[in-house]
Amino acid sequence: MKITDIVLTPVAFRDPPLLNATGVHEPWALRTIVEVHTDEGLTGLGETYGDLGHLERLRAVAPALSGVDVYALNRVHAEVAATLGGATGADKHGLTGQITPEGTVNRVFSAFEVALLDIQGKAVGRPVADLLGGAVRDAVPYSAYLFYKWAGHPDAEPDEWGAALDPAGVVAQARKMIDEYGFGSIKLKGGVFPPEQEIEAIRALRAAFPDHPLRLDPNTAWTPRTSLEVARELDGVLEYLEDPTPDIPGMAEVAREAPMPLATNMCVVAFEHLAPAVAQNAVQVILSDHHYWGGLTRSRHLAAICDTFGIGLSMHSNSHLGISLAAMTHLAAATPNLNYACDTHYPWNRADDVVKPGVLSFVDGAVPVPAGPGLGVELDRDVLARLAENYRTCGIRQRDDTGYMRTVDPSYERKQPRW
Amino acid sequence: MKITDIVLTPVAFRDPPLLNATGVHEPWALRTIVEVHTDEGLTGLGETYGDLGHLERLRAVAPALSGVDVYALNRVHAEVAATLGGATGADKHGLTGQITPEGTVNRVFSAFEVALLDIQGKAVGRPVADLLGGAVRDAVPYSAYLFYKWAGHPDAEPDEWGAALDPAGVVAQARKMIDEYGFGSIKLKGGVFPPEQEIEAIRALRAAFPDHPLRLDPNTAWTPRTSLEVARELDGVLEYLEDPTPDIPGMAEVAREAPMPLATNMCVVAFEHLAPAVAQNAVQVILSDHHYWGGLTRSRHLAAICDTFGIGLSMHSNSHLGISLAAMTHLAAATPNLNYACDTHYPWNRADDVVKPGVLSFVDGAVPVPAGPGLGVELDRDVLARLAENYRTCGIRQRDDTGYMRTVDPSYERKQPRW
Ligand SMILES: [Mg+2]
Ligand SMILES: [Mg+2]
Repeated sequence: MKITDIVLTPVAFRDPPLLNATGVHEPWALRTIVEVHTDEGLTGLGETYGDLGHLERLRAVAPALSGVDVYALNRVHAEVAATLGGATGADKHGLTGQITPEGTVNRVFSAFEVALLDIQGKAVGRPVADLLGGAVRDAVPYSAYLFYKWAGHPDAEPDEWGAALDPAGVVAQARKMIDEYGFGSIKLKGGVFPPEQEIEAIRALRAAFPDHPLRLDPNTAWTPRTSLEVARELDGVLEYLEDPTPDIPGMAEVAREAPMPLATNMCVVAFEHLAPAVAQNAVQVILSDHHYWGGLTRSRHLAAICDTFGIGLSMHSNSHLGISLAAMTHLAAATPNLNYACDTHYPWNRADDVVKPGVLSFVDGAVPVPAGPGLGVELDRDVLARLAENYRTCGIRQRDDTGYMRTVDPSYERKQPRW
Repeated sequence: MKITDIVLTPVAFRDPPLLNATGVHEPWALRTIVEVHTDEGLTGLGETYGDLGHLERLRAVAPALSGVDVYALNRVHAEVAATLGGATGADKHGLTGQITPEGTVNRVFSAFEVALLDIQGKAVGRPVADLLGGAVRDAVPYSAYLFYKWAGHPDAEPDEWGAALDPAGVVAQARKMIDEYGFGSIKLKGGVFPPEQEIEAIRALRAAFPDHPLRLDPNTAWTPRTSLEVARELDGVLEYLEDPTPDIPGMAEVAREAPMPLATNMCVVAFEHLAPAVAQNAVQVILSDHHYWGGLTRSRHLAAICDTFGIGLSMHSNSHLGISLAAMTHLAAATPNLNYACDTHYPWNRADDVVKPGVLSFVDGAVPVPAGPGLGVELDRDVLARLAENYRTCGIRQRDDTGYMRTVDPSYERKQPRW
């Protein structure tokens, strides 16, 4: 079964003003929807980043895949590497750590790999989880992903979530999200306010949700010294502390004395980061993400590496839609050592999902593994057309949280670490 | 598609008197042929060790797999672990390094996993290599696996290979094997004679085959000091030196000064050995072997680990038949970073192969990847019946190279290291 055509559709969907260490989410988040067509009539879906540089790399690679067999994943990876020829795709939002040439290949490859696995699953009438060793859990637990946020975008009405700018606001947001989704774990995106305030927010969450595992992720906003101070303050409170400080050596310095595990999706984001991270015992949990670890199969390799080297495994998320949620769920279901609830931005963006309703749902904070063949999801063509039109008109071509923040506060500067 | 029945057939096939560091191959080598039947009529094949302890573990596990879905590899692994409950299967021949409980689970799991992948491939009409990411090479290069040997077993006629007990005999054996198979790499099983004699044999091979990469494997017969002396003598001659000395710390000591890479299938034989081996930089090449690394998928994980940590990847072999050769070939074909010619004992045992002729062949030292669905091989029922009868009558239930040597030379003692 050969690839005949690949359709790449950049889309934009509404995103609330979620605050983070480098600024604030713009009103539109970007993704690219990937459709891989074959000579046997089966089509596979993928979802990946929508930044223009990434989209251009996807567009450069797609023609090289024409005629390639849908099982030839190794060959597809080689074609991607050959086409990109060592290019790197640095981001502008500053939240993904260091992007290497190999990491760039894996980012581009991933979008196609997921679509090809979707096709393989459809060909044999099996869910993608079965192609990854079979589900070890019927539903995948996700965490409530809390953000400090404004009530609404500047010059817009407040959104349904309202403001969260202090501990009470954060607890109210958690309450709403847990009421609606049933999440059993909580993650707070930090790095927004001085550490004392974020410690206070975590303590308020602990008081309000005594049994929910809690995580705090300041996206490297702190020096190692500040990180250790926060870590000591939150001893016994946090399940893990995520990316308190930049770089493997910095994380290693904190890890030596921090009382809780350190997690990362910033200093270990490509296979080449693993050897130094292991050598320095820099991180105790890796947040995997098939979008940049090179797809579902390579994410299983990453899981095996974590298992082998005694590193915990969780899952990272960017703003995403249902194709990604389905892929994340199949992967997590088939990964025995994924022992933490996964991150997802889906509650913030689901209103604009391109996936036909009915398959993806949250039950007690967990997404049941789609049972249909492949990813088990279908495109809603009307929504896709609407989101594609959003993309054409929204004016955003590259995520820039800092630039957007500076339109509101011209004095805002990106600083990592800030405290 | 559910497993309905598993048939385990222990077999014995003729094996020449191949010498090694712990004795000599007995006249019969043992394997177990695995047939997994399903409720949809498809059957999958596996091949694994035939030692009684292993066979008993396979027999203990098989009933637990009845009714399990053929895609539920994660669940099968869990069932194997639960059934074995921490048992370990130490070998008697002393050539496999330390066997751990997890390693024992992976040895048992592997036989079933290969058979289930065979079924999965047949279900979708694809070769197993396609289920592993697709072949990156049409044919898999193997090495000429040379042994010191007697002309024949005691009280038997000389075999077609004749004696190889000195450099000239080793070169003659290499010549015959390369003439017949076209191998482009040469491995000599050492640890039999004092190191000076084996160095001489390697030099004779180098003179006779100036362009063939050469390897020497004394199966930990040497102290670190002897290992280093040999390594220095063979500087520029060996592609790699395999298991010169026991244990990870010993290998690390040699690796620090040896001028060539050190390879192993003895000190790193389970995932739990990888962290200490990496930390000590003990080995530069790992000989993978799906029979004990937990099947083809886990061997792909091992390959990813080697790639990630800068370790070379080759492939190990025990005495085996065509089902294993097919599985090894699919795996090697789909493993991009397997950059060394694989080991195989197949030339020593192929006369008794249980696989119907026509699919497996050597062309210029390489085995073309079987193109049919699954492993692409079929059982020859007549041969299987004959080998099963051999098993019933041969009297051997556990490989014991030392015991057999002692029937010939009662003064023989196992000693590792010996020199
Ligand atoms: Mg993070
Ligand atoms: Mg060896």
